[in-house]
Amino acid sequence: MRDKPVISAFCRAPDFAKGRVRDLRIRWAFEELGLHYDTHLLDAMSPRDEDYLRWQPFGQVPALRDGEVAMFESGAILLYLAQRHGALLPEEPQARWQAVSWLFAALNSMEPPLMMLPLLTLVHGDEPWSAEAQAAIRPFVAQRFQRLGDALGEREWLAGTFSIADIAMASLFLIGIADLAAGQPRLAAYRDRAFARPAHQRARAAQLADFVEDAPTPMEGA
Amino acid sequence: MRDKPVISAFCRAPDFAKGRVRDLRIRWAFEELGLHYDTHLLDAMSPRDEDYLRWQPFGQVPALRDGEVAMFESGAILLYLAQRHGALLPEEPQARWQAVSWLFAALNSMEPPLMMLPLLTLVHGDEPWSAEAQAAIRPFVAQRFQRLGDALGEREWLAGTFSIADIAMASLFLIGIADLAAGQPRLAAYRDRAFARPAHQRARAAQLADFVEDAPTPMEGA
Repeated sequence: MRDKPVISAFCRAPDFAKGRVRDLRIRWAFEELGLHYDTHLLDAMSPRDEDYLRWQPFGQVPALRDGEVAMFESGAILLYLAQRHGALLPEEPQARWQAVSWLFAALNSMEPPLMMLPLLTLVHGDEPWSAEAQAAIRPFVAQRFQRLGDALGEREWLAGTFSIADIAMASLFLIGIADLAAGQPRLAAYRDRAFARPAHQRARAAQLADFVEDAPTPMEGA
Repeated sequence: MRDKPVISAFCRAPDFAKGRVRDLRIRWAFEELGLHYDTHLLDAMSPRDEDYLRWQPFGQVPALRDGEVAMFESGAILLYLAQRHGALLPEEPQARWQAVSWLFAALNSMEPPLMMLPLLTLVHGDEPWSAEAQAAIRPFVAQRFQRLGDALGEREWLAGTFSIADIAMASLFLIGIADLAAGQPRLAAYRDRAFARPAHQRARAAQLADFVEDAPTPMEGA
């Protein structure tokens, strides 16, 4: 019997990251496909070893091993799973390439500006220039949300049927910048539709379940 | 006879962008494939019209039309061209998915932090917080280059043979952050190998040729 595929994820991470780490996207896809997987768990607060860097060169999660294939990057893994299992991408060429366009758009046109805001808050929040930098970036991020909402229009999902593009795009609403999309009921409804899917809820529960409680200190545990 | 594919590109842009706009990646792929294409030229300094936003929701370039397929995002278009023409991606599964991993890594793990530096210089360079923000980001970007160089090792191309991953990754060296890779001769050699390809040189010349000289003002032209 073939081994289950393995994804990398975290067993320890800062609280703000729990339920939001990018392996969630891959767990979500597995749940949509009805497939089982194993996890290779890492501590986000410790340096990665050389073995892991050979699997994921930037030390990030997720990475995937599936039979003879070892690979990395959440977008690439979503595409691999969709192609390998013939699901989560439309068959008709125009819809299929629209879905792939939106997958890349989530990761290259939406996520980078969005991620600058938590980066400025969580990593550089104590520095005097952080607030001004945030103020400079927020209108740009708000415009990207506006364009996303306009493009989605009345459709339920970005490429017609639910696809890996929606897994990637809806996951961005976990970043914690929801207020910037607040004026757009279509986007709020899109996010709610995505997060209401049982596969998303199972994926989120599975990510959260893999975090261990920090061991009590010797004093507390004695 | 089938119409040639059409890509969007700019006929006017700020000088710093000329030779660096993302349609270069697609022109490069077409040149590697030995295929002809037409261009739909836009003025980078004017707002996009509604027709263009229906083709490219964020108003960016490039977008592609090829027969019945209309799509956007440089990474998605590279993948489309490779799959449609059966080239620029290895056939063997592990090498193929490594190439796809590196394609996404170029666009999601490398380009976003790299792009913050010219953004801070060119758009926010006059603001008092810009220098401190740049100083905070540079070590992170330098680490990403270090990891890229380590992962490339002694290989000529990221996935063995030249692929769309190399088009996406080598193009990042056009961003103008070359000094951050300066301590890494492997990366400098990788960039030089990529830019020495005749297809890259033809693509760059084609992008530059599509920029019109600004019309002389009435006074000068009179």
